Amino acid sequence: MSVTAAKGFQAAGIAAGIKQNGNPDLALVVNTGPRRAAAGVFTSNRVKAAPVLWSEQVLKGGQVSAVVLNSGGANACTGPKGFQDTHATAEKVAEVLGRGAIEVAVCSTGLIGVLLPMDKLLPGVETAAAQLSEHGGEKAAIAIKTTDTVHKTSVVTKDGWTVGGMAKGAGMLAPGLATMLVVLTTDADLDGETLDRALRAATKVTFDRVDSDGCMSTNDTVLLLSSGSSGTTPGYEEFAEAVRQVCDDLGRQLIGDAEGASKDIKVEVVGAATEEDAVEVGRSIARNNLLKCAIHGEDPNWGRVLSAIGTTRAAFEPDRLGVAINGVWVCKNGSVGEDREKVDMRYREVHIVADLAAGTETATIWTNDLTADYVHENSAYSS
Amino acid sequence: MSVTAAKGFQAAGIAAGIKQNGNPDLALVVNTGPRRAAAGVFTSNRVKAAPVLWSEQVLKGGQVSAVVLNSGGANACTGPKGFQDTHATAEKVAEVLGRGAIEVAVCSTGLIGVLLPMDKLLPGVETAAAQLSEHGGEKAAIAIKTTDTVHKTSVVTKDGWTVGGMAKGAGMLAPGLATMLVVLTTDADLDGETLDRALRAATKVTFDRVDSDGCMSTNDTVLLLSSGSSGTTPGYEEFAEAVRQVCDDLGRQLIGDAEGASKDIKVEVVGAATEEDAVEVGRSIARNNLLKCAIHGEDPNWGRVLSAIGTTRAAFEPDRLGVAINGVWVCKNGSVGEDREKVDMRYREVHIVADLAAGTETATIWTNDLTADYVHENSAYSS
Repeated sequence: MSVTAAKGFQAAGIAAGIKQNGNPDLALVVNTGPRRAAAGVFTSNRVKAAPVLWSEQVLKGGQVSAVVLNSGGANACTGPKGFQDTHATAEKVAEVLGRGAIEVAVCSTGLIGVLLPMDKLLPGVETAAAQLSEHGGEKAAIAIKTTDTVHKTSVVTKDGWTVGGMAKGAGMLAPGLATMLVVLTTDADLDGETLDRALRAATKVTFDRVDSDGCMSTNDTVLLLSSGSSGTTPGYEEFAEAVRQVCDDLGRQLIGDAEGASKDIKVEVVGAATEEDAVEVGRSIARNNLLKCAIHGEDPNWGRVLSAIGTTRAAFEPDRLGVAINGVWVCKNGSVGEDREKVDMRYREVHIVADLAAGTETATIWTNDLTADYVHENSAYSS
Repeated sequence: MSVTAAKGFQAAGIAAGIKQNGNPDLALVVNTGPRRAAAGVFTSNRVKAAPVLWSEQVLKGGQVSAVVLNSGGANACTGPKGFQDTHATAEKVAEVLGRGAIEVAVCSTGLIGVLLPMDKLLPGVETAAAQLSEHGGEKAAIAIKTTDTVHKTSVVTKDGWTVGGMAKGAGMLAPGLATMLVVLTTDADLDGETLDRALRAATKVTFDRVDSDGCMSTNDTVLLLSSGSSGTTPGYEEFAEAVRQVCDDLGRQLIGDAEGASKDIKVEVVGAATEEDAVEVGRSIARNNLLKCAIHGEDPNWGRVLSAIGTTRAAFEPDRLGVAINGVWVCKNGSVGEDREKVDMRYREVHIVADLAAGTETATIWTNDLTADYVHENSAYSS
């Protein structure tokens, strides 16, 4: 049900011809109110795509009537013309829906450094608007796929209100604040400030801790829109938990569909002095190419975990470190632990626990293995 | 000629049986004086192998009579027993040569987390000592190979004095202070302080800027020994330049033999506000897996260069960035530049220039492409 699970939203997904293969490539999500409150988080990459620069301005107004999303081109590093194209897209949506352009967020995904075919995109907006429906969430989720093999949606329904959403993302997946494109909707009756607080709290422990390939995108955007149409105002904690659940579910789906991956790796850092230490260590382990290759080979090579920990500034003593892989403590006190032959790595999900023995804080980072398929897919992406 | 090109040094390389395949695995380099001055730089990884912890102590004494090096095992993450083994190795060398153990540096390389077979290693020291020769440099260079396909040596001879050296390293190649194992020798008559200054100046701009796979080793060691036997004391600048040349040559050889690589990539950052900015940006580009895959596919995907620059703290404006690949400015002013079809990427060496347009400082980082062969080699390394 995706973004139309919550009441007060319509969506559509169509093939506008932006992708040369004819696959769906344009999605529209419209908030029919009564509220139009919204919050957003964006990539912390300093090279930001035109739609990110535009949508950041939109969000400052605190009202979002519609989100238009395209795959088939990131509209990043496209200069003033790229920004004009984003603006023209928002104006077109505004015109068709009878809203103000400054309430239209724009998201793009695809190859960097290529201008969008506006002669396909603008007519596509009209086609999409004509197909808007309260059942269009699934089609919208499909239209934002790039190298994704499946579309990603998630819904949590509580007592009288709902949070739903869609996500895309399969590569260049290492957010600094958000991840790839995500639109969340809710019919809970909440103001923009509450949405913002709940969204930032959720992304910090979900999308922000998804690190498939260490490469931060220029286009990452996560939006949360409220229509208020349920007439229900839940307590903050309950609402924030629902948003976190949806984000967590979508983040897990992103990892599960990462380019070329054969393993989903849960890196759990425990015994850290601070949460920041735990995140830094988790990210260092998650980004270690040699370890990612070892996991691909189902090799519990814990020495590569220790060498990754050793590059961080976190508090720890080398001779107190411990590492468990799928429940077997193969490293104890910084040295050889249980028999590595006991480690069963046949399944897709692999669980690495790194114990810093320096405190009680924890953090979990999700990543993938490094595979020949990842190399093949990404050595031929634009050519 | 390697480490025996300079007068006053003997070396040997033998198969002690540490490697199960019977290949050479033990090297000995001996300084026959009259001087025994030395300097060393070590990995900045906080998880340090036993031989690094030992050799750091040796270097504090400022005198090195001999270096014993083994491949076939890193002796890292091996606890107190590992350190005892390193100590016993130094004691054995000291006993055989009639020197003090505190003047014997030890280097190990190979798999992390495995104890060395001391029943093979200690008799090997006696065998190696019996084969010490002023022509043994080549054999020593061969004995320290792990996944290296070729051994690496370099020599610069000046007016009456020489700097020579050997290196090993093919993976886990991203130094924070040095790289893998390198022994340099000179017969120039210089004290330890001068050696230290020249060595640090050289490694900072050579090994420190070799970043093949972003993975920092637990065992990196670079040693520079002076026998003083030429009786010549060159000026500091001339000597430092010779050391830099040897380090540069060896560093380039490491990149040329990196595991699974099909491209050697020179990332040159220009127009930086500071040298630190240039290094940070160069390293970020060099570590971007998506870009490394694109280069493997001979795809001049400059958008991935910009997305890597955008993750740094360096001074720059996104709309002033420029990127040239093999001489073609495919990105100008942060947007599309010359026709990417003009870029010829058929050869092994690829030259990327990133212009930050923010100053006059520069730095060059060398890296490799990311290949299916790298994945295959490293997914089966320990199993």
